[in-house]
Amino acid sequence: MKIIRFPKKDTWETLLARPLLDFSQGEARVRDVLSHIKQKGDLALKEYSRKFDGYEAENFRVSEAEILAANTLVPEKLKTAITQAAANIQSFHQSQQELPRRIETMPGVICWRKSVPVSTVGLYIPGGTAPLFSTLLMLAIPAQLAGCRKIVLCTPPGKAGIISPAILYTAGFLGLNEIYKIGGAQAIGAMAYGTASIPRVNKIFGPGNQYVTLAKQQVSQQGVAIDLPAGPSEVAVVADRTANPAFIAADLLSQAEHGTDSQVIFVTDCEPLLEAVREEVEDQLASLPRKEIAREALQHSLIILLENKMQILEMINSYAPEHLILAVQNPEEWAEKIENAGSVFLGHYTPESAGDYASGTNHTLPTNGYAKAYSGVSLDSFVKKITFQQITGEGLRRLGPSVEVMAEAEDLFAHRNAVSIRLETLNGKNHE
Amino acid sequence: MKIIRFPKKDTWETLLARPLLDFSQGEARVRDVLSHIKQKGDLALKEYSRKFDGYEAENFRVSEAEILAANTLVPEKLKTAITQAAANIQSFHQSQQELPRRIETMPGVICWRKSVPVSTVGLYIPGGTAPLFSTLLMLAIPAQLAGCRKIVLCTPPGKAGIISPAILYTAGFLGLNEIYKIGGAQAIGAMAYGTASIPRVNKIFGPGNQYVTLAKQQVSQQGVAIDLPAGPSEVAVVADRTANPAFIAADLLSQAEHGTDSQVIFVTDCEPLLEAVREEVEDQLASLPRKEIAREALQHSLIILLENKMQILEMINSYAPEHLILAVQNPEEWAEKIENAGSVFLGHYTPESAGDYASGTNHTLPTNGYAKAYSGVSLDSFVKKITFQQITGEGLRRLGPSVEVMAEAEDLFAHRNAVSIRLETLNGKNHE
Repeated sequence: MKIIRFPKKDTWETLLARPLLDFSQGEARVRDVLSHIKQKGDLALKEYSRKFDGYEAENFRVSEAEILAANTLVPEKLKTAITQAAANIQSFHQSQQELPRRIETMPGVICWRKSVPVSTVGLYIPGGTAPLFSTLLMLAIPAQLAGCRKIVLCTPPGKAGIISPAILYTAGFLGLNEIYKIGGAQAIGAMAYGTASIPRVNKIFGPGNQYVTLAKQQVSQQGVAIDLPAGPSEVAVVADRTANPAFIAADLLSQAEHGTDSQVIFVTDCEPLLEAVREEVEDQLASLPRKEIAREALQHSLIILLENKMQILEMINSYAPEHLILAVQNPEEWAEKIENAGSVFLGHYTPESAGDYASGTNHTLPTNGYAKAYSGVSLDSFVKKITFQQITGEGLRRLGPSVEVMAEAEDLFAHRNAVSIRLETLNGKNHE
Repeated sequence: MKIIRFPKKDTWETLLARPLLDFSQGEARVRDVLSHIKQKGDLALKEYSRKFDGYEAENFRVSEAEILAANTLVPEKLKTAITQAAANIQSFHQSQQELPRRIETMPGVICWRKSVPVSTVGLYIPGGTAPLFSTLLMLAIPAQLAGCRKIVLCTPPGKAGIISPAILYTAGFLGLNEIYKIGGAQAIGAMAYGTASIPRVNKIFGPGNQYVTLAKQQVSQQGVAIDLPAGPSEVAVVADRTANPAFIAADLLSQAEHGTDSQVIFVTDCEPLLEAVREEVEDQLASLPRKEIAREALQHSLIILLENKMQILEMINSYAPEHLILAVQNPEEWAEKIENAGSVFLGHYTPESAGDYASGTNHTLPTNGYAKAYSGVSLDSFVKKITFQQITGEGLRRLGPSVEVMAEAEDLFAHRNAVSIRLETLNGKNHE
């Protein structure tokens, strides 16, 4: 990791620029895949499964027997951990439930809003080397709490048509049963348009490779909602002299091992930590199975020394990290000043991996600086908040004249009439 | 308006298809405008102002004197109406504020989330025939309640460089002072990238023509958030035999006058209302200033007779109207069953125009069927919900082992280490 001492403020933006992902090459290919699926449905799906996943699909749907079988393949201690993580995720997301509050903005004018579940949602869980059953917990649990009527899960099988037991077990544990063995851009297309065997969904969630990302981006322009724009994962660790260099190094590495495009930033005003952390990173890196990936990620990652707390906060807020660890003595004070971040971890005993798996918060978060305007996935992501209003005759008598004047000032006379005609009727009734 | 009696369910989707807007022709042009603004900044802005708005800009910023002058140009009764509308919009949006709730998901594991304002937002208000000061109320009030630090307003001037007094007055009334005379795609580009005179924003709100819509769509792919995907405005009115045909007609027309691509749907199970409403529409249409626009919109609008309440609800939920009026005897019962709609108006004395202007709800709503997965603009649109967590040593002792097991099962050993290294230290301390 490169150490930068006291960078000038006007260099920060360049210094902290995210690795640019150029997906433009895949765009046309993904567009073809999507339009082919829209036209040919299952036929196209089978073709792509063969071509991209090497899987000859008879039937995409996972059987009940397969789900049950996964039960015997997952070790008990993992089952216990999943149960505990699920309970924490449930209780935190449950707390996000919003009850309708009826507001009488004027006498006789009552407004409220109600959270109503998105009826059908699609979850995409990548296969490949790391079977991300944790992401399944993070997406399916709030979908269930929100009350989504149908939850469709797509995940790619290996060549033999087998899905990771940990993913299948988690799905079965949560009671999901619409599980399909499809991966890549074709899975996104199938859920966006629907085919004979895959239901069409209203919103698609989940991470994936560049083709999945591009497909989500493209269908989002066609009326299907998506969770978040995608970008590489990242963490910023902030530390003061009370921090433990070994803990910081472990946190930096836990982000770096995600992928070669992960970004990892360590910022401090404590000079002695610079070398101490760098050495710890080197030491711990040596024993990691994914050390090659992590090493590459660390090449574009930085250790930054700044003057003081104020400067550090300014840099963090301008960077807007997906994950932010505050390894400082008074983390609550720092947290108060955080304006842009996906999820914040306070203190020396709160590693990011706690939130990645099991503490209760969601791990699907805004990357790439999107934390300046986007929130992570939460219960909100699985509902629409519909507004309602009911006005009494008396209420309209009070409110109506304002509406008439404003509509007229906008030259929208039919808008005015919709009030006037009612007020005339109300007044007529008075004279009866 | 065309009357359709008892359409078969498998024809509904085609019957209720939205008018297709083909914007593809403008795409390349807007891409050029945006990249030109990104490169040349104010120079490009001035060029486009001259070319598209016929306005020779010396300076884009509206002066304090101009804002004050608007004060004398707006009639008192409009000022009173705006004051009342603003108060209602404030009190409804204020009620959407969410306070942090600290949840101890396990002993020593504390999670919460906090709403933090989007720091800088850009509001676009179109000029042209209808000066939409109501949209300015709907966007600026929640932005202020949320605590956005900077609110930038762009609106196109006429050729003489003059902005509608109603818009300027409203801006002044709300205390906005960063107002710029810029319109079209170039305004969106200026706010997305920033120029020497226009600040860069994190999120852009507001309606506009096809170029504005395309520009918002394009910058949203480049990291700037936007409020909602755009589509033509629409209303569905549902009525039973207690409804007043004149009220229904007025509501249908108030939507039809928005634009020739507006869609207006009337659904009932009460046969006599079909002709009665059609006749009322014709009668009221005759005296409208915008009758040509409304007439064209009505050409692709429908009056539909269905069997019963259940069928009507099914059709409405599959159509997902932006606005839904329930002109029925027991609107609360119906409202309970609404799954997809932007905003719902209950009863005979609740016209859509009340919500368009002054009752308190927001009028920036999901069109085009997006109500199946998107919410309208609310206080939420101006904040990010950041999650926080703090774990004590004791909390990590309880939670940590689950994290270790799960990380290992996902082959992410650095994730596991971030917990293990802390647990070792905690245990070491015990032995000291």
